[in-house]
Amino acid sequence: MRIVKLTEETKKNILENLLKRSPNQYGAYEAAVNEIIENVRQKGDAALFEYTEKFDKARLTPETIQVKEEEIEKAYQLVDEKLLEVIRKALVNIRSYHEKQRQNSWFNSEENGTLLGQKITPMARVGVYVPGGKAVYPSSVLMNVMPAKVAGVSEIIMTTPCNADGRVNPAVLVAAHEAGADRVYKAGGAQAIAALAYGTESIPKVDKIVGPGNIYVALAKKAVYGNVSIDSIAGPSEILVLADRSANPRYVAADLLSQAEHDEMASAILITTSQELAEKVSVEVDRFLEHLSRRPIIEKSLDNFGYILVADAKADAIEAANAIASEHLEIVMENPFEVMTKIKNAGAIFIGEYSCEPLGDYFAGPNHILPTNGTAKFFSPLSVDDFVKKSSVIYYSREALEAIHNDIEQFAACEQLTAHANSIAVRFEEKES
Amino acid sequence: MRIVKLTEETKKNILENLLKRSPNQYGAYEAAVNEIIENVRQKGDAALFEYTEKFDKARLTPETIQVKEEEIEKAYQLVDEKLLEVIRKALVNIRSYHEKQRQNSWFNSEENGTLLGQKITPMARVGVYVPGGKAVYPSSVLMNVMPAKVAGVSEIIMTTPCNADGRVNPAVLVAAHEAGADRVYKAGGAQAIAALAYGTESIPKVDKIVGPGNIYVALAKKAVYGNVSIDSIAGPSEILVLADRSANPRYVAADLLSQAEHDEMASAILITTSQELAEKVSVEVDRFLEHLSRRPIIEKSLDNFGYILVADAKADAIEAANAIASEHLEIVMENPFEVMTKIKNAGAIFIGEYSCEPLGDYFAGPNHILPTNGTAKFFSPLSVDDFVKKSSVIYYSREALEAIHNDIEQFAACEQLTAHANSIAVRFEEKES
Repeated sequence: MRIVKLTEETKKNILENLLKRSPNQYGAYEAAVNEIIENVRQKGDAALFEYTEKFDKARLTPETIQVKEEEIEKAYQLVDEKLLEVIRKALVNIRSYHEKQRQNSWFNSEENGTLLGQKITPMARVGVYVPGGKAVYPSSVLMNVMPAKVAGVSEIIMTTPCNADGRVNPAVLVAAHEAGADRVYKAGGAQAIAALAYGTESIPKVDKIVGPGNIYVALAKKAVYGNVSIDSIAGPSEILVLADRSANPRYVAADLLSQAEHDEMASAILITTSQELAEKVSVEVDRFLEHLSRRPIIEKSLDNFGYILVADAKADAIEAANAIASEHLEIVMENPFEVMTKIKNAGAIFIGEYSCEPLGDYFAGPNHILPTNGTAKFFSPLSVDDFVKKSSVIYYSREALEAIHNDIEQFAACEQLTAHANSIAVRFEEKES
Repeated sequence: MRIVKLTEETKKNILENLLKRSPNQYGAYEAAVNEIIENVRQKGDAALFEYTEKFDKARLTPETIQVKEEEIEKAYQLVDEKLLEVIRKALVNIRSYHEKQRQNSWFNSEENGTLLGQKITPMARVGVYVPGGKAVYPSSVLMNVMPAKVAGVSEIIMTTPCNADGRVNPAVLVAAHEAGADRVYKAGGAQAIAALAYGTESIPKVDKIVGPGNIYVALAKKAVYGNVSIDSIAGPSEILVLADRSANPRYVAADLLSQAEHDEMASAILITTSQELAEKVSVEVDRFLEHLSRRPIIEKSLDNFGYILVADAKADAIEAANAIASEHLEIVMENPFEVMTKIKNAGAIFIGEYSCEPLGDYFAGPNHILPTNGTAKFFSPLSVDDFVKKSSVIYYSREALEAIHNDIEQFAACEQLTAHANSIAVRFEEKES
């Protein structure tokens, strides 16, 4: 991996380079995506089946688009028992963490007869998109479905592309069933997003669509945003390791490689205050590379978006980490919890040398669907909050309103909203006239 | 107002009619908006000043685009003292309510040496858009700025269009200063949104853009979503009153009118179980109309999107209210708190006959920026949550990781991510080899 000195200049260049991976750069696909959405919106199933035949080479009908009980049973027979066991263990942790995120409705009352509050209600129906294609991630099914389940969503609809024979990956089906998805439909790409957003004869309209996908899926989610809610728009995965000379170079190298293997757009960055560590990590990366099955992908992603940055001071290293706002941030430094207090922007923070990123991907419990590509400055990990919404609650007694009614009428008058003022005034007219 | 019997058929037609007001229907403006955004993104201030001259007829320079201290001082001289007093009273309530929304970072630790948590960090810099044009709403400034302030955002940037003389409405400036906006820029429309999203020489890039606006502003916010965060896309205002025969028809009529006056696209709906109330409310609406200054707007909005619906049963009325998912919902029925427990979808719920909607617009404390046009099924009122983001926190001891390392390696192997498995395995290789 290239070793670069961290300066304002290099930081700026790296930030610009990383942003090239943003889905916002793919405007060229927008017209195609919009056409797919418009067709599915207008023609429903007919368009959905047509696109499924075109893109997934599968001929579906209203009878076959929904995964049947038998297909799920068969999936259980096909899946490695060990995987099933691990899925169940992971689900216990994922459920437990997300249950801690649950918020209560609350109210505050005062003795003059006012009550103000916030009522929390789960969404009624959400759609989870699970990509097919090259890689299959049952862990991602768990991470998308479980927070919705914990939030109390009544109906969780999953869509995922099938292969040409109309079959869905069995590990995905088992994960969906274990996590508690209510129905699974065979649909992928922008057409699946459109079906979830507007509903077709077969697939019901949902309130929110979550889940990762390729650029077509990302653009389709953005296009339907507002008509439904969406989770954040996912970009390629990334890791940033903050390490000082106390770090084990072999561990750091292995962790950088674990993100670089995701795809060629993934980014792996080490920021360290130790030139010695920088050099050792670079050597270890090369050593590991010889044995890793996804070497071609890793080499490309390291070439494009991999850096080892050497900082003059710990404060500079931390400042750069906040500027990059990585999806995954590992802190392998002395006093790592103190360093954590200075982290403003990161999707997930892994503290200490035994908290490696794959622990969070699969098992620890926190969600692995995290803001990417700098969006940790304003987006959060997928959570129970994503599947509820709030209503303000307002009660005022006659006495309470009377005490302030002139103030409100005054404010409304300043905004020239006389019917607003009238709505208050009418309640006190008899008394005052 | 038209009185219609509530049936499945009428409900369906009304829902379709209301959706015509959605900003998603305005694709025709998209190309113009995208061009503005692209120009500001590429040319910065030059493009921004050009558009400001074109649309707002004002010639600005880097020296005049930011509102100066003197301009704010002058605004205080121009603003009615009574308004200032009311603004200050309202701010106390708005701050107090939003302070109750603040969430804590949390962690959970176990004795095997694991610690899992969620760290909450305020966003660094947010942009508040305040529309100019026909109507000026200082209350909206308070509602946008205060939650960001309470959340702990370091820098709150406001943009609002100026008039041809380069002046900004004084009530808006005073409200901004009172609420705690750090800087105000004279910029409006899609060009202001683009400047906030990408930054120009004069206006700094922000993390999130909030605030209402016309269709250009709404489309621009959607276009930059992903590059920055945005609040939900605002549609026209609306009220739904749920009332039984116990309701005062004069109050109900006044409340319906208070929303209908906002603009011609606003919607005012009464759903009642009492035919008698329906008829009386209709009469009262006509009586009030004779005296209200915004009569032409009100008549159009009632013609287009106003309904009095008579339901056979209370359950049907509530079910219809949930289907419509109104921005503002008033419950003027016997046992209104019990009815509230059955409300799933509403931006703000006003309970009882003295909790009229304008109380929430100006004074009570909850935010008046609420999900519109059915989006209360998945969006929430603007809140402190909108101005913070979360990071997962994960710490595992060596012992804790060792106990489960085989499980994680197993899971990674099933997903064919060998570098993920390696990142775990490397930490235990010495011991096991």
